[in-house]
Amino acid sequence: MANLAKRAFLEIRKEISQLNLTRKMGVTARCHAAKIIDGKAMAQKIKEEVKDEIKGFKSKGGRAPFLCVIQVGEDPASTTYVKNKIKAAQYTGIESENIRLPSSTTQNQLLDLIHLLNANNDVDGILVQLPVAAHMNEKKICNAVAPNKDVDGFNVLNVGKFCVDELAFIPATPAGVMEIIRRTGIETFGKNAVVCGRSKNVGMPIAMLLHADGIYETKAGDATTTICHRYTPPDKLALFTKTADIIVTAAGVPNLITADMVKEGVAVIDVGINRVQDARTGKTKLVGDVDFEGVRQKASYITPVPGGVGPMTVAMLMKNTLIAYKKVIKLD
Amino acid sequence: MANLAKRAFLEIRKEISQLNLTRKMGVTARCHAAKIIDGKAMAQKIKEEVKDEIKGFKSKGGRAPFLCVIQVGEDPASTTYVKNKIKAAQYTGIESENIRLPSSTTQNQLLDLIHLLNANNDVDGILVQLPVAAHMNEKKICNAVAPNKDVDGFNVLNVGKFCVDELAFIPATPAGVMEIIRRTGIETFGKNAVVCGRSKNVGMPIAMLLHADGIYETKAGDATTTICHRYTPPDKLALFTKTADIIVTAAGVPNLITADMVKEGVAVIDVGINRVQDARTGKTKLVGDVDFEGVRQKASYITPVPGGVGPMTVAMLMKNTLIAYKKVIKLD
Repeated sequence: MANLAKRAFLEIRKEISQLNLTRKMGVTARCHAAKIIDGKAMAQKIKEEVKDEIKGFKSKGGRAPFLCVIQVGEDPASTTYVKNKIKAAQYTGIESENIRLPSSTTQNQLLDLIHLLNANNDVDGILVQLPVAAHMNEKKICNAVAPNKDVDGFNVLNVGKFCVDELAFIPATPAGVMEIIRRTGIETFGKNAVVCGRSKNVGMPIAMLLHADGIYETKAGDATTTICHRYTPPDKLALFTKTADIIVTAAGVPNLITADMVKEGVAVIDVGINRVQDARTGKTKLVGDVDFEGVRQKASYITPVPGGVGPMTVAMLMKNTLIAYKKVIKLD
Repeated sequence: MANLAKRAFLEIRKEISQLNLTRKMGVTARCHAAKIIDGKAMAQKIKEEVKDEIKGFKSKGGRAPFLCVIQVGEDPASTTYVKNKIKAAQYTGIESENIRLPSSTTQNQLLDLIHLLNANNDVDGILVQLPVAAHMNEKKICNAVAPNKDVDGFNVLNVGKFCVDELAFIPATPAGVMEIIRRTGIETFGKNAVVCGRSKNVGMPIAMLLHADGIYETKAGDATTTICHRYTPPDKLALFTKTADIIVTAAGVPNLITADMVKEGVAVIDVGINRVQDARTGKTKLVGDVDFEGVRQKASYITPVPGGVGPMTVAMLMKNTLIAYKKVIKLD
């Protein structure tokens, strides 16, 4: 992939060394590499905060929050995700139950279970690990979870509420992206934000949160927000990313965003998770949608993959479970 | 307001007449004024279609669709709007009832009425004219209307559904904008669309529909969509509008979009309704958000105000009532 910024940087360095003018030219400021956002550390901090708050409730005689994680079938990736969620729950002091159902479970059996958990006052959060079995209607399952226990934020009522800037459960990944932006101190007010990818669980909610109007219940985003997607022509995409103060990519396309496509000082949040083969070693590795090495030379902030948005997701799920426990969101 | 396009046009005309080269220079093509979209005629056509379809149902022994329009209090603007809706219903063969309640009506009384209408199988569409009385919670009222009778599309469940590109009742104004775009043959696929204004009943739904992904239940919009709003700095707004193939304004700001801010061939849909004083006559007149005379010199299509989007709204409400009657949208 062409890496114009890096090449320009190297050329400048060469010229500088020839001219021996290093100090006068202020190269450090111009080619200052981005601050790499440590998603793992931030996630850890959030988990500590959740843990402390739960400890507080318990010390006053309260019970622990309770999270039910339902898994249908034996998908190995799902098993890993569920395991991480249960582990985070244990760490933060959230009681949890991992209900594993055989893939032969009927949709009605699963719906009956969800209804039982909805009615159980000791259960604060309910999560059905996706994808569900092929014979099930995913939307019907997600919409069966009581909105006030819907810690994944996939019930369409929660979608509607957060789309009109009302307090609602926000899916963990978009919530994690906004938490990164806020905790890092990246300004969104009046800025240009570009979201690459319009998936209903990630790209769309992020676009809604970035442009959210502070006159309603939720925090203002107030960014001018452009939603790009697979039908955005490459030259148009570059046009938008070049004007962007903030770029959030959730497209699942390695090297979608390269250094020549961004302006100096951009903040880049990379939600992509792509498995690619390393050209040198031949080994499989995880990368995001961003040419990290190139873009970091121009960006002010950048999240790595792995270790950026990824770890935040589980932490935000714990936060959502705590919110469900505290019953602070009215969903009547 | 500066009107660069018009001035440029006049200057070119002057040069041409001096050089007497009119035919050779192809001025017509360059300065071709926009096709003005006749919203009134389009709305009339939609009403005819609704009328014909209802006639068909009746000729097969079916009953007419039934729309309830509830008005609380005596707001004169509301009275006019309601009157227009009832008139359109009569025209199209929709039976309707205008339920007028005194402003002293309590919220619970109104909710009880809505619940009665929800349970009545002879009622297809229910509409509460907004704004409701000051002592009422507007959201609670809108959310009380059964989703499958919610012809205004203001119930948060309908919002959630259309935001995830599922079939749902879409508020009449955004639905009217998309109908104009489709019937006029304005291409959205892969185009740049700019929406000015992010209100939850107009700007936001339009942005969602313009970028909608065709892999779900609804029609694809597939435009790269930028949401601008009151915190978009003027220079940034112009940057986006200049790249736009489609501009939809719903900001309520006269002269927000001027000729110097748009590119040749742009399609402009003006949802703004602003009452301003005419500088020459001193009389009050209705204008949109767009400098109509200036922008029409560059645009391919443009809607006037009045007579553009306005008349479409009532027609789309009739269409929504017919959809409710046909029970084609599943809202379980």
